[in-house]
Amino acid sequence: MTSLYHYPLDPFCRRIRLSAGEYKQELELIEEKPWQARAEFLQLNPIGAVPVLVNDDVVAAGIEAVAGYIEDHRPQDMPSQIGNGDKERAEVRRLTSWFDTKFHHEVSAPLLVEKVIRRFVSPEAGGGAPNMNVVRQSLDMIRPHLEYIGALTEDRNWLAGNEISTADFAAAAHLSIVDYLGDVPWSENEKAKAWYQRIKSRPTFRTLLGDKVTGMPASRTYVDLDF
Amino acid sequence: MTSLYHYPLDPFCRRIRLSAGEYKQELELIEEKPWQARAEFLQLNPIGAVPVLVNDDVVAAGIEAVAGYIEDHRPQDMPSQIGNGDKERAEVRRLTSWFDTKFHHEVSAPLLVEKVIRRFVSPEAGGGAPNMNVVRQSLDMIRPHLEYIGALTEDRNWLAGNEISTADFAAAAHLSIVDYLGDVPWSENEKAKAWYQRIKSRPTFRTLLGDKVTGMPASRTYVDLDF
Repeated sequence: MTSLYHYPLDPFCRRIRLSAGEYKQELELIEEKPWQARAEFLQLNPIGAVPVLVNDDVVAAGIEAVAGYIEDHRPQDMPSQIGNGDKERAEVRRLTSWFDTKFHHEVSAPLLVEKVIRRFVSPEAGGGAPNMNVVRQSLDMIRPHLEYIGALTEDRNWLAGNEISTADFAAAAHLSIVDYLGDVPWSENEKAKAWYQRIKSRPTFRTLLGDKVTGMPASRTYVDLDF
Repeated sequence: MTSLYHYPLDPFCRRIRLSAGEYKQELELIEEKPWQARAEFLQLNPIGAVPVLVNDDVVAAGIEAVAGYIEDHRPQDMPSQIGNGDKERAEVRRLTSWFDTKFHHEVSAPLLVEKVIRRFVSPEAGGGAPNMNVVRQSLDMIRPHLEYIGALTEDRNWLAGNEISTADFAAAAHLSIVDYLGDVPWSENEKAKAWYQRIKSRPTFRTLLGDKVTGMPASRTYVDLDF
């Protein structure tokens, strides 16, 4: 059995759950709160981040190692989630990184820290009420990303081309965190909303819709396919 | 002909030059100063970062896309730089990311900004004298990374295992920037120094040793193999 140490609201873990689900790879989910810095977890990943995948004596620590493992083990009868051909693969990788670095840095990481993690850590470790300046800045940054998603889907089925790819899984994973918090202004971009509706309707997305964080219910429309 | 838009002191471009060199892939180097945000360059990569690889109608923009392209085109008679087998590949990817994210964030990115880029941009864009607090903090962070490199090579030939890998190229690329600036305290860790000496002696490293930045000569020992 392959296990995934994950935190439900971590966007990288969600990207992996979507990728693995689409490849029909089963993962046993083990919840880990990375900010607790458990000694046993630091043995698996000295950098202390989720996701970490464990299969017998293989430990893949961090998003790059886990995503690489998932791709290395893809069923040979399914198309690669990185796409086919140089052009498509370059575009998938560029856009996956766009969401995993730019969107993460500008939106999902600061919102996750301010609105979620600060609730669960001690005041000495930076816990407490969210810094509303940081929250407002991050919320402002969502809009141009929605516009970019909308523009990309104008002449493509999915973000990086005509097939669904890790770019879609990364984008949806990061946005789904913001959506859990109820902070995505969906009404402002119909095309981006239509893309999200399509990916949210996939069976693999259901596992994310069932995620619950104690004391932090999801936004009213988080589980609705018609939001 | 495959072209690489690069900046000589950018660690991600250096990682690609090492990887491509070891795979015997020729790249025509085109110098790009990403902070100038040239319109033609932003057409190639809207995020504005180097490296960008161009081959006919293929544009691979950003480190993930370029590294993926190089790996996808590796000569089939050479071993993969990501290693063989799940364990080794997980370790290569974990450590490549260690240097490309952690070391970059803590050391090479702030030093590059403070000591190099601020010289070349206008005061309105943040140019001027380096912020010495930031410089000092970054320099302090080098030591634990050298210790980690030293510890990794205690029972391995190279950082991630017995074969040279992208983990070595990433680590050497980032450290080589700091070395160009003369800021690596090599004498403090003999094992890390011995590892760097070995990678610096490889023919593919020579192209990096010839890099020159106008008005910023390399440190006295930057080109010496016996430093």
